[in-house]
Amino acid sequence: MNTSVVLKRRPAGKPVPEDFEVAESETPTPGVNEALVENLFISLDAGFRNWMDEDAGDDVLPAMALDHPVMGLTVSKVIQSNNPDLPVGQILMGRLAWQSHSIAGPDDFLVPLTTDDDVPLSYHLGILGDTGMSAYFGLKDIAQPQQGDTVVISAAAGAVGYVAGQIARIMGATNIVGFTSSAEKAEKLVNEVGYDAVINHATDDIDAKLAEYCPNGIDIYFDNVGGQILEHVLNHINEGARIPFCGAVADYTSTNPGPSNLFKLVTNSARIQGFMTHHNVDRYDEARDQLKDWLADGKLTCFEQQYEGVDSCGTAFSGLFAGKNFGKSVVKA
Amino acid sequence: MNTSVVLKRRPAGKPVPEDFEVAESETPTPGVNEALVENLFISLDAGFRNWMDEDAGDDVLPAMALDHPVMGLTVSKVIQSNNPDLPVGQILMGRLAWQSHSIAGPDDFLVPLTTDDDVPLSYHLGILGDTGMSAYFGLKDIAQPQQGDTVVISAAAGAVGYVAGQIARIMGATNIVGFTSSAEKAEKLVNEVGYDAVINHATDDIDAKLAEYCPNGIDIYFDNVGGQILEHVLNHINEGARIPFCGAVADYTSTNPGPSNLFKLVTNSARIQGFMTHHNVDRYDEARDQLKDWLADGKLTCFEQQYEGVDSCGTAFSGLFAGKNFGKSVVKA
Repeated sequence: MNTSVVLKRRPAGKPVPEDFEVAESETPTPGVNEALVENLFISLDAGFRNWMDEDAGDDVLPAMALDHPVMGLTVSKVIQSNNPDLPVGQILMGRLAWQSHSIAGPDDFLVPLTTDDDVPLSYHLGILGDTGMSAYFGLKDIAQPQQGDTVVISAAAGAVGYVAGQIARIMGATNIVGFTSSAEKAEKLVNEVGYDAVINHATDDIDAKLAEYCPNGIDIYFDNVGGQILEHVLNHINEGARIPFCGAVADYTSTNPGPSNLFKLVTNSARIQGFMTHHNVDRYDEARDQLKDWLADGKLTCFEQQYEGVDSCGTAFSGLFAGKNFGKSVVKA
Repeated sequence: MNTSVVLKRRPAGKPVPEDFEVAESETPTPGVNEALVENLFISLDAGFRNWMDEDAGDDVLPAMALDHPVMGLTVSKVIQSNNPDLPVGQILMGRLAWQSHSIAGPDDFLVPLTTDDDVPLSYHLGILGDTGMSAYFGLKDIAQPQQGDTVVISAAAGAVGYVAGQIARIMGATNIVGFTSSAEKAEKLVNEVGYDAVINHATDDIDAKLAEYCPNGIDIYFDNVGGQILEHVLNHINEGARIPFCGAVADYTSTNPGPSNLFKLVTNSARIQGFMTHHNVDRYDEARDQLKDWLADGKLTCFEQQYEGVDSCGTAFSGLFAGKNFGKSVVKA
């Protein structure tokens, strides 16, 4: 039997557990050029909320269908195959679904993983996967931190943010300030991840705190959420500021308008640059090798929250939007 | 006597002639290191609206003071001098004021002009000045048009936009689409400036027209206004789209929120990059030489609207926001 979690109804704003439902079905049989895989780990990524709306289909992905298994990134193992490129036993990363087993084909962004190292498999969904690489590409290609720079990071305790804070430090930034939504997360970010200061966007006076923690202005804003925080940050940016932009949770869980002060980009010759990790697929090896080296050297630390069982996917995913998680959230299927 | 136009009251939204008043005073005497200049031409730039608000002072310029002459760019001639770098007879460009005569000092962004060519002096405020160079730097440094690219330009009949449309073509873009606000301007943009198509943002269905005129999507959006048009354009951008952003009239004449779909930047790995021409001051010669060559070759055509007399500044400036002007607007002082 195959256990799936399906999209029962389209979330209204923030997803809640009732938007999802566990479903059992026959284990499917692979067709021509396809393989049957067992999903070992399932990644929970806030960004996928974007494709849960009815009219959300775009060049990147189609809108998710109601009553179908929810799309998501997985680490999976081939257990039956009609495709010589997907041999039985192969471990791979793919864009499959919240299921115990999936059919994997050439359109599913499959990336074979080497397992001849001592890296836990779940790391390939987090610090060595899309979220860790997002932090890496956003900083290396777009932000390019310099000695003395002040870097501000939204969703600092999220799967991208907690890695970005560490990489910004490795790359030489001097002052690293995060946004988060609870005192516990703020404390952990300062004491365990190495942030210099953290602002609680739910309770603090954001402008006053930005002025206090960023006395020399903001050189880099690594934006993982979009929305209101960006407007506040724009009032404090320096000339030549860079804003790598890799997520916009605020955009798709509310009807909030965008920032009304984009003119600050003009007066500061600053830029907002969106990016998606899969546009850099030919550089995954470079990114993973660098991140592995930093992990091995102890410069980079992994924070991961694991849930047990496919049927926990809906609740765990909803938790991302309730600000409950720290670091990367994965389900052990 | 010295004729000035002063800021009588702060504009509420779009400036109107009653926000300004003509004032007569003694011709001033230059102090240490200063010169007295006669202003020959005064530039009308929508961007200066930004600093007419009470709390508008920023790193670029202070907020304008009530009952003081309005700040503006000028082409001026030194007629009395206490500064050996500003010899009598020197023609220069400066950030001075709406006056027949001004005191010019080292803080006034003075740039000496050579007059040993046959370029009309007023061109240094338009096609060879800030607006022409904005079009040049925005396209050369940020947009980098490629063969086959579709370029969309807001305020296409404005001082930056009509030059940007021509330079985009020179640099190889294939499909050039403008936004403007009247049928007359649209016709002139197509027949005289060389746009492929023009959308009237006041009367057309913007999304339908963008789909019709940009069947291959938008590679470059040269944004001179900010606001609502950006939101429409973001729904049509291609992967890797570039949005040079050099003005935001919409931002500062209304309470319009920003675009709510900035997430499109993420899914398309696209960027919005603000810039100000004066940040490239060390490259003015490069830009002017290139623009002069294109003018001489007939690849670039100047469109200029001249007003007569300092006392016309307030009315002429207000006209910019009423969509009445085509090309660059200058006052012959």
